[in-house]
Amino acid sequence: MLVSCEGMDPAEWGRELAALCPDMEFLAARPDGSDLPDAETLTRVRYLVAWKPSQKVVSSLPALEAIFYMGAGVDHLLRLDVPDVPVVRSVDEDLTRQMTEYVVWQVLHHHRQAEAYRAAQAGRRWEPLDPISAPDVGIGILGLGVLGTDASEVLKRLGFHVMGWSRTPKVMPGLQTFSGEAGLAAMLPMTDILVSILPLTEETCGLLNRDLFATLRKDGPLGGPVLINAGRGGSQVDADIAAALRDGTLKGASLDVFETEPLPAESPLWDCPNLVITPHVAASSDAKALSRTIAGQINAHRNGEPLRNIVDVSRGY
Amino acid sequence: MLVSCEGMDPAEWGRELAALCPDMEFLAARPDGSDLPDAETLTRVRYLVAWKPSQKVVSSLPALEAIFYMGAGVDHLLRLDVPDVPVVRSVDEDLTRQMTEYVVWQVLHHHRQAEAYRAAQAGRRWEPLDPISAPDVGIGILGLGVLGTDASEVLKRLGFHVMGWSRTPKVMPGLQTFSGEAGLAAMLPMTDILVSILPLTEETCGLLNRDLFATLRKDGPLGGPVLINAGRGGSQVDADIAAALRDGTLKGASLDVFETEPLPAESPLWDCPNLVITPHVAASSDAKALSRTIAGQINAHRNGEPLRNIVDVSRGY
Repeated sequence: MLVSCEGMDPAEWGRELAALCPDMEFLAARPDGSDLPDAETLTRVRYLVAWKPSQKVVSSLPALEAIFYMGAGVDHLLRLDVPDVPVVRSVDEDLTRQMTEYVVWQVLHHHRQAEAYRAAQAGRRWEPLDPISAPDVGIGILGLGVLGTDASEVLKRLGFHVMGWSRTPKVMPGLQTFSGEAGLAAMLPMTDILVSILPLTEETCGLLNRDLFATLRKDGPLGGPVLINAGRGGSQVDADIAAALRDGTLKGASLDVFETEPLPAESPLWDCPNLVITPHVAASSDAKALSRTIAGQINAHRNGEPLRNIVDVSRGY
Repeated sequence: MLVSCEGMDPAEWGRELAALCPDMEFLAARPDGSDLPDAETLTRVRYLVAWKPSQKVVSSLPALEAIFYMGAGVDHLLRLDVPDVPVVRSVDEDLTRQMTEYVVWQVLHHHRQAEAYRAAQAGRRWEPLDPISAPDVGIGILGLGVLGTDASEVLKRLGFHVMGWSRTPKVMPGLQTFSGEAGLAAMLPMTDILVSILPLTEETCGLLNRDLFATLRKDGPLGGPVLINAGRGGSQVDADIAAALRDGTLKGASLDVFETEPLPAESPLWDCPNLVITPHVAASSDAKALSRTIAGQINAHRNGEPLRNIVDVSRGY
């Protein structure tokens, strides 16, 4: 097994994985491939556990049987020329829980008028506002995979009117679902808070733009539509969001992802009104939790069992 | 029926209630009783629907059969000399939903390190922090009535370690419960986020003070304990909270209630570090929703059915 990950400590991952797959050999390499073991050693590598590896790493493993990606979105990996082996993305209880936390946190931030109360507090002013009733607020979730489904359940439990959109039709109990281009056009005018958990694909690239914002519900109880993006920065047009927040097309936004990450210091987004910026932390891979999931899959695969959460490479997620 | 409420429009309530109890006579009066109808008219009043009425209003109704209080906490009413009739407090789906929203919102605000991310954003800095795992966070809920129970369910669904305390022992599925003084002393050292939804009674008056804060868990994942009070301001010592936030005994706090409301502009709380102040809006009575509940009870009572949510006056809630 070769572990190669950007921005995380491969030794930490190696320790966790080694404890869970005690009879396997472990190798680590920088994601740029600058310290790869010799070619002879690399012929023994059956599994690659990686986060943002370079083409050099991906291409250097002749006996590779599967790639385990340390994240839920595999767009970065699929930009490479990937060998024809199963690519497994991370679906992990811990990641799901974090994403639901982030979505619920930001929905409530806007729904409960956090910015207005913060401004009143800064001015030492006691200014109660009329409450907004959750059932009057339409939340549209883009992406109904494991993450979107889990978040929708908690938002429904809180009383919101939750709708969901996916590329292909899905039927989910208690959730009003939409699909395809026509479904998106139908859902957006009923949407006060649009939550994107979409993967980055050709279809979703640049989807969250000015034209789309203009079709969201304008006369809802929040005083204007709100955008929350916890999917991928490539799905949004940063400049359109900044302009929409400044001209009121959007009442507010919460962005965890950006076209360029880290978000450059000179970005006009940093000081937009009613915008919450977090540095791509909505759901962070935890070495311990994810190692358990990946080791479980590797051990199952070695026992001849099928892999779960295999990416459809042609679809991109 | 007489409607008398402070800070709300009795005419609006009257309209809602009149539509739901079409065969009843409606009277309205200022809470100070300065415009009460004549004594002859008042002998016809069987039901008082009130919010913070004066002694004069409460004492002027010889044929009174029940008091419906337009709030969940009746401490203000019970400070008066109340006639010996059932006092019904408001338990309403809408109030419950709002309270759960507030608690979840503020728990996530602290759990997701909102203040640190806001400071980074203000400085245009991209600074990811290590995520905090919800199951590692102990949440102690003071008060396991309808409100505390509902909030605990959503917090459990989000993965937190939720504990609950009540005056008398309660057994609740999936919730670690504590009761009495000994139970409180046992729960607090495991508590990272203390959430009070307690009514104001002799026992709870001033409970949330410096001595109590010192017993909360110090070495938890949040870097120190957090207090959330959405119950009654009389349960807390404002000055102790301000001091505890400044000296680090508390890592953070969210207060919706205060010893004196509105919170005076000169209070030292306004600019305490890591404190979220809201102006007693965690759960606001909505005329339409509450009227439905109260009218339903009045109509049932007139049909000889028993009243629900009667306050135990000796207990105070």
